[in-house]
Amino acid sequence: MARTIQSLERAAAMLRLLAGGERRLGLSDISSSLGLAKGTAHGILRTLQQEGFVEQDDTSGRYQLGAELLRLGNSYLDVHELRARALVWTDDLARSSGEAVYLGVLHQAGVLIVHHVFRPDDSRQVLEVGAMQPLHSTALGKVLSAYDPVAHSEIVEADRTAFTPRTLTGLGEIEGLLDLTRARGWAADVEETWEGVASVAAPIHDRRRMPVGAVGVTGAVERVCQEGELRPEIIAAVRDCARAVSRDLGAGRF
Amino acid sequence: MARTIQSLERAAAMLRLLAGGERRLGLSDISSSLGLAKGTAHGILRTLQQEGFVEQDDTSGRYQLGAELLRLGNSYLDVHELRARALVWTDDLARSSGEAVYLGVLHQAGVLIVHHVFRPDDSRQVLEVGAMQPLHSTALGKVLSAYDPVAHSEIVEADRTAFTPRTLTGLGEIEGLLDLTRARGWAADVEETWEGVASVAAPIHDRRRMPVGAVGVTGAVERVCQEGELRPEIIAAVRDCARAVSRDLGAGRF
Repeated sequence: MARTIQSLERAAAMLRLLAGGERRLGLSDISSSLGLAKGTAHGILRTLQQEGFVEQDDTSGRYQLGAELLRLGNSYLDVHELRARALVWTDDLARSSGEAVYLGVLHQAGVLIVHHVFRPDDSRQVLEVGAMQPLHSTALGKVLSAYDPVAHSEIVEADRTAFTPRTLTGLGEIEGLLDLTRARGWAADVEETWEGVASVAAPIHDRRRMPVGAVGVTGAVERVCQEGELRPEIIAAVRDCARAVSRDLGAGRF
Repeated sequence: MARTIQSLERAAAMLRLLAGGERRLGLSDISSSLGLAKGTAHGILRTLQQEGFVEQDDTSGRYQLGAELLRLGNSYLDVHELRARALVWTDDLARSSGEAVYLGVLHQAGVLIVHHVFRPDDSRQVLEVGAMQPLHSTALGKVLSAYDPVAHSEIVEADRTAFTPRTLTGLGEIEGLLDLTRARGWAADVEETWEGVASVAAPIHDRRRMPVGAVGVTGAVERVCQEGELRPEIIAAVRDCARAVSRDLGAGRF
């Protein structure tokens, strides 16, 4: 046994298709995108719909992702030890830094945000739990790539898009940056992913000293930097938070 | 064609199993719970793992839900028209009421929370997007059951658990309450689900005047009620919010 099951792989490919780009697709779009006969695609979609993974719009007949995915995604978070351990420390970090805090783990070729604490002010903010960030340009991604060999091989193979004029895309430059990250124990992103936005992140280790995630602060470059340099008190606060979470995960002293 | 696919149904049953109760299960637990041969269960789990829907703990060998579900759940929210239309209005409701705001839709036999605005104070709060609430005891659930015939048939068939001494569980009592809800256009939950907690909710309709969700305020009973009665300004604010979102969805005047 222990072979993989084709209909399941096809169903997963459909969900990925519906999660990217258009997001509302007809049967023909789906079958042709995945190179499946219409009847085959319809049988899979019908089952996905019955299970709540896909919903069909009454008027257009188009398919989109279903509510059961949200429920299961929430259950995934409930069992997530890293997130549970980090809740209190990330709240404290948001308060002390005055900025938004993100907790990320490696997923596929990017960083999956598993926790997001809003910047503690009255501004309107959109929750980004479940969103993906690139490995090569974000502070969280650089930290994961510096410490996790799987993330490192992803960054080597990835399309390293230049999101801004400051994004580093050359492999040599990035390797240098990852060396620096390991040497100093944290990484930054100053307008390399989003114009006007800067981040600082540090690694979280578990009891086996494996890198299991990264935590970071993200905010307006005017607040996170001062006179062109990252504010040292923000770097210290991020590293303190990462150490506290690691200690709670059993990683021992640093 | 258009039959459902057994391996997909089994995979969905595994994910539901991992989302409830224990949440970290070994191969034997999973195969015996679902009445499958171990080889069959292993083939499905292996594929789910490869696709990121399931993760296996290195040390214990137990399975749990995987990160891809969080990513897909977030994509589900991104395409959710009701939530998109409600973002601004629910923020305003949280500010004006000073309480937490929840937006819910019918999913399976309960209310799925698709948006949650924290109470606008400095207290530590846990995000409940993706969580389920019961239909028969919560304000959101009563609203959905009063207006949506599918929700109504779920409430009739459901186990109507008494969560507190104030929970109504008899079908006759609940039908009376749903009549009242339709007559006045809103529903409440005063310590019927959680001790010390009260809620008020109102229905959201779309352009076809179909009930597509409910929005409500939830807070400490001491703040939401005054002298044993729900505060009328909170009821008015919740109904204003529900009308505003409905109007944005094209439901026209009231």
